[in-house]
Formats: sequence, C-alpha cells, structure tokens
Amino acid sequence: MSPTPREAAQAGVPDKPLLAVLRGERRDPPPVWMMRQAGRYLPEYRELRAAKGGFLDLVYDSDAAAEVTLQPLKRFPLDAAILFSDILIVPFALGQNLSFVAGDGPSLTPPLVGTDLATLTPYPVRLEPIYETVAKVKAGLGPSQTLIGFAGAPWTVATYMVAGHGSRDQAETRRLAYGDAGRFGAIVEAIETMTFDYLSGQIEAGAEVVQLFDSWSGSLAPSEFERWVIAPTARLTARLRQKYPDVPVIGFPKGAGGKLCAYARVTGVSAVGLDETVDPVWADKELPAGLPVQGNLDPLALIAGGAALKPAVRRILDALAGRPHIFNLGHGILQDTPIAHVEELMALLKKKKK
Amino acid sequence: MSPTPREAAQAGVPDKPLLAVLRGERRDPPPVWMMRQAGRYLPEYRELRAAKGGFLDLVYDSDAAAEVTLQPLKRFPLDAAILFSDILIVPFALGQNLSFVAGDGPSLTPPLVGTDLATLTPYPVRLEPIYETVAKVKAGLGPSQTLIGFAGAPWTVATYMVAGHGSRDQAETRRLAYGDAGRFGAIVEAIETMTFDYLSGQIEAGAEVVQLFDSWSGSLAPSEFERWVIAPTARLTARLRQKYPDVPVIGFPKGAGGKLCAYARVTGVSAVGLDETVDPVWADKELPAGLPVQGNLDPLALIAGGAALKPAVRRILDALAGRPHIFNLGHGILQDTPIAHVEELMALLKKKKK
Repeated sequence: MSPTPREAAQAGVPDKPLLAVLRGERRDPPPVWMMRQAGRYLPEYRELRAAKGGFLDLVYDSDAAAEVTLQPLKRFPLDAAILFSDILIVPFALGQNLSFVAGDGPSLTPPLVGTDLATLTPYPVRLEPIYETVAKVKAGLGPSQTLIGFAGAPWTVATYMVAGHGSRDQAETRRLAYGDAGRFGAIVEAIETMTFDYLSGQIEAGAEVVQLFDSWSGSLAPSEFERWVIAPTARLTARLRQKYPDVPVIGFPKGAGGKLCAYARVTGVSAVGLDETVDPVWADKELPAGLPVQGNLDPLALIAGGAALKPAVRRILDALAGRPHIFNLGHGILQDTPIAHVEELMALLKKKKK
Repeated sequence: MSPTPREAAQAGVPDKPLLAVLRGERRDPPPVWMMRQAGRYLPEYRELRAAKGGFLDLVYDSDAAAEVTLQPLKRFPLDAAILFSDILIVPFALGQNLSFVAGDGPSLTPPLVGTDLATLTPYPVRLEPIYETVAKVKAGLGPSQTLIGFAGAPWTVATYMVAGHGSRDQAETRRLAYGDAGRFGAIVEAIETMTFDYLSGQIEAGAEVVQLFDSWSGSLAPSEFERWVIAPTARLTARLRQKYPDVPVIGFPKGAGGKLCAYARVTGVSAVGLDETVDPVWADKELPAGLPVQGNLDPLALIAGGAALKPAVRRILDALAGRPHIFNLGHGILQDTPIAHVEELMALLKKKKK
C-alpha cells in the first residue's frame, strides 16, 4: 500500500502521484506524462540533436541523453520523466548492428529472417551507458516526479530483428512465427532474457516504473497474440515482479483492440496503456476493476487543439474517473505539435475538478 | 424468414447457404467465400490481367471483369462471387481522376486536401459499366451461389479522396476531420449519396448482398469513429434497407477492435465482418446474440498451410459454431498463397461436423 498524500507528508516521504496511481489510488487531476515527450516538437531538443549528430550518438552520450530526458519537465508540469533511449538497444546488445538512417528509420543487420540467431555475438556491455543516463536523470528529478524506464516487448523487438527494419504489417515476422515456431520462439526467448537484464539494470540505476512497448502487437491473429504477446509479457512481468516487487510494470499493447481484456487479465502487468483508438468508456467497462490505465488522447487532437482538443480530453477524464488513471497520449507526440497546444492540455488537466 | 433447405427444395426455390446465414440461420459447414478471391494468386487471373493491360481497363471491360469474378468459383466450392471492381470507382464518379500505377497503388487527382469538393464535376455515368458486370456475373452463377456487390464505406473512401492516395495512418484525413469537420462532413455526405446510388445500381443489376469495406476504420479515435464510421454507415444502411428490405448489408470495419460492439449495435448492418486480429471467441461473447458474422482466418495462416492452418480454422469454427457464420479470411487473400492451401482449406471446411 502506498501512503496517502497526508501520510506521505507526515512521514516525510515525497508524494509521487504517478506511483500512487500505479499502486491503485485514484487522483484528481490524474498524473500526466506524454509518450515521446522528449522529442522533436521541442526546439531545445532539435538544437541538442543537431549538435550531437546521429540519434544513437545522442542515446549513448549519457549527459546529453539525461538532458534531453529532462527537457520537457522544465517546460510542462509533468509527473514523470521517461528515459530517452530506443527499443532497439536490446537487439544491439544481442549482437546486431544498429543504425538510424534519416528518412529510412532504423536498420538492424544481419536480419534474422536469413541468419541464425546463434551466429550473433551478444554484447551486453552495450546496455551499460543507458544505466548511466538513468542515474543522471534520477538525480535531476523533483521530489514528486517519477522516473520511467522502458524496453520494447519481445514480440515488437522480434519484428525488427527478423525483418531488419520496421514494416507496415510485420508480415515477414508473422510468417516466420507461423512457419517455424521453434526458431522464432528461440529469438523471442533471447530477447526476453536480455530485456530482463536490461530492465533490471535500469531499475538498479533508479527507474521506479518500467513500461513495455508492444508497438506492433496489433497485427497478430488471436492465437499468435496469446503466444507471442501475452505469454512473453507474462513471463517477463513475473520475473521482474519476483526480483523487484515494488516496481510497477506498465504494459502497452498498441492495437490490441478487443484482445486488451485478455492481455490485462493474463499478463499480470500493473497497468495497461490504451492507444488512441481504444474507447475509454469501453475499456473502463471491460478491464478488471481497479486496474490502473494510462492514456489515451489522440496525438492528432493535440495538433488540432482548440475545439477538437477540449471534448477529447473531457471524454477521457470522464470515462476513467472511476479508476486509477494516468493521463497520456495514445501514441507518441508528433513532431509538428504546437507547444501552445501542450500548454493548453496541461491547463485543461490541472483545472479538472470532479 | 428464409425457407429451410427442405422448404426451399420443396418450393423449388434454390437454397443459397450464404443468404440463409445472413438471414439468421446457422449452417454446418458454414458457407465460404474469400475476400479478393478473384485475384493475383490465380494464374488464370494473372493471364487475363496481363492481356488487358491496366487494372482499370479490366474493371471497365464488363466481359473480362465478369470472367475474372467467376474464375475462383470454377476452382473452389465457394458459396459466393464478389463483384470484381474497386472501392475508388465512387471517387471516379464524383469527378476525381483515377489511375493505378504499378507499385505505387491508386492515385486520385486532385486530392481534396487542397481542393474544394465543389470544383469537381460528377460523372455518375462512370458507374454504369459496373452494373453490366454485375448482370453478366449473375447470369453465370450456379443456383446455390450468391452474388455480393460492394462499395467502400464513406470514411475509407474519404481517406483516399482527401490524400489522393493510400496512406499508412490516414493522418491527413484525420487532421482535416478534426480541423474542419464542416468541410470534411460535406465530402463524406457526397460519398454517401453516390455510394447509395452505386449500391442501388448493383442491386438492380442482380447483387443479392452488399458489403461495405471500411478498410481504414482502425486508425480513428472513438469519437471520430462514431462520427465518421458508425454514423455514415448507419445512414447508408437505413437508406438501403428502406429501398431493398431483402438485401442484407455486411459491414466490415477493419481494425475496429473493441469498437466493433458499438458498430454492430448502432449501424444496423445485417452482419459484421471480423478481421484476422479479432478473437472470434471474444466476438461471439460480445456481439449481439444471433447477429451473423463473417471471417476471419489470417491470410498468413493460409500461406503457411499445414500445421498452422488446421488449428487456426478449427478455432474459428468452434468459436462461431453457436451463431450464423460465413467463413472468410480476415483480409484479402495474398498473392503468394499456394492454390493447394486454398484446396486444403476447402477440404477442412467441407468435412466439418459438429
């Protein structure tokens, strides 16, 4: 049980609204952070990024990565920082070469569609600079702010490792999973193990919550979803819970649709993220009572602002007023989002009164 | 009420399993057809297509289009033919120029993102050759086979008309819908009206069922889904039902996820199509009792065949054994699907015994 704000204040423990919600409290207004909040919509991010050169150079410079992580918290009254890193650090540590080509997105070589996993040489040392970033961010946070670590969920990471790049419908990986479940299962298992180590390292360095991004879970048929999304997430969550019982795990199975209910029931995650296509009224009705949820403003409603933004925010707040809720977008904030609209969102959230 | 098979036989009315299911009967085995069943996985299709040149040339040659429509029924024991045409015939009739560039997909000019709808000159005459195809297909069908006409649902058609092409996440159209709902609403209304005429023409020419493909409904936030998917589908369905009370309307909101329940309850469609990501067990539990459903084999499971195919088919048959069910894929059949796997699927379906 987390202390109430009063108990915390009495005990001298700083109140962290995001952690409180993840432990089952409702807060009004809800705590808020935004996926990809440290990103290109911020001029100070673009400036630092330009000075550093490549994306990976920025991720691996722990001073710069910590600075970038903290940038949005200097502008907006956010309740959490999320580590500035990338889900493909795990394939990099598993031995694939990783590069980010402007306009083309990430590239991993060799792609596992044509290469045996056993030919890769793991370099777990590639994870360590990230832990330094975590520690530096933690040192820069205010007392009410929470530090979120993250990794890609095994299925999503596997789609990149198999294809060697992002893809519209993950067809290559889905075909491998159907056609050679043994070989594909070994890839997922290797990712799971490395991800457990990676999240453990983040937690040891100061992450207070971890989020598993399953960005491409939406393309899977239900039996494949059970096998490659739910089962690995459940195993990973159980291992983390055993080692770090106090660290909540947020699962974010983007595009899961109606399968969100099974995901929430079976994986054991502490909270589920809702993407922007999920009706929060439906989610509140269908998800296990008391399970904290996170989301789910459409990033395009934030770009539109004004007349589109207000009712979209209101619908989410009203729908989720009856359960622990962390306000967030349903997807990463987009590059051309006006700063003024983020300020408008913060003002709308902070004046919420039930 | 449709006659039972016995009553139909007694009355001399041919029994059409697909129509019977759409009117609320359960059939074992279920009737079957496959989205995009007249397509490039068939060598006879590729041959005719090569002889005709462009895709649009094939669509507008009603003899060839009718032949293509009937090709899969000559190979497989399918219960329905679906008109060979394209959802972009409606924008073409609304006055946009339509072309299909190999590798690039369809192009509509001028895109409405930068042009006012009022500058287009409608050419409803562009719909008429399609009605000839419908009549020719109808004349070629066996007595137990059903002819399905179709159109794109207004939202999906609008995404092409606004952007001028297909897009990954329909962001341009979603932005226009948020930013200028009045202008976007006028586009949707024009599509609705032309689509009503188009489907009426198909029905007059012999279509016995119509399907509304809402291929891009999956990207919408819930309030936008209500406004641009559910509401236009409900209006169109109501108009069709009033004019042709005996013609069932199948709604296929691809990617709707948890919003499928609201779609099924509110639109008034006679049946809903399930894409391959929908768990049929969940759908059977959540959808209105007795509502016919269509779907939803993963096209990649059909490509995989063998050990992957059998349990995937079984799961669907078992989950939907308690309600009227039309077996189908969850998405169009893919070009590299082996013919032998389609034959395997047909054999699996035809030997089904409860």
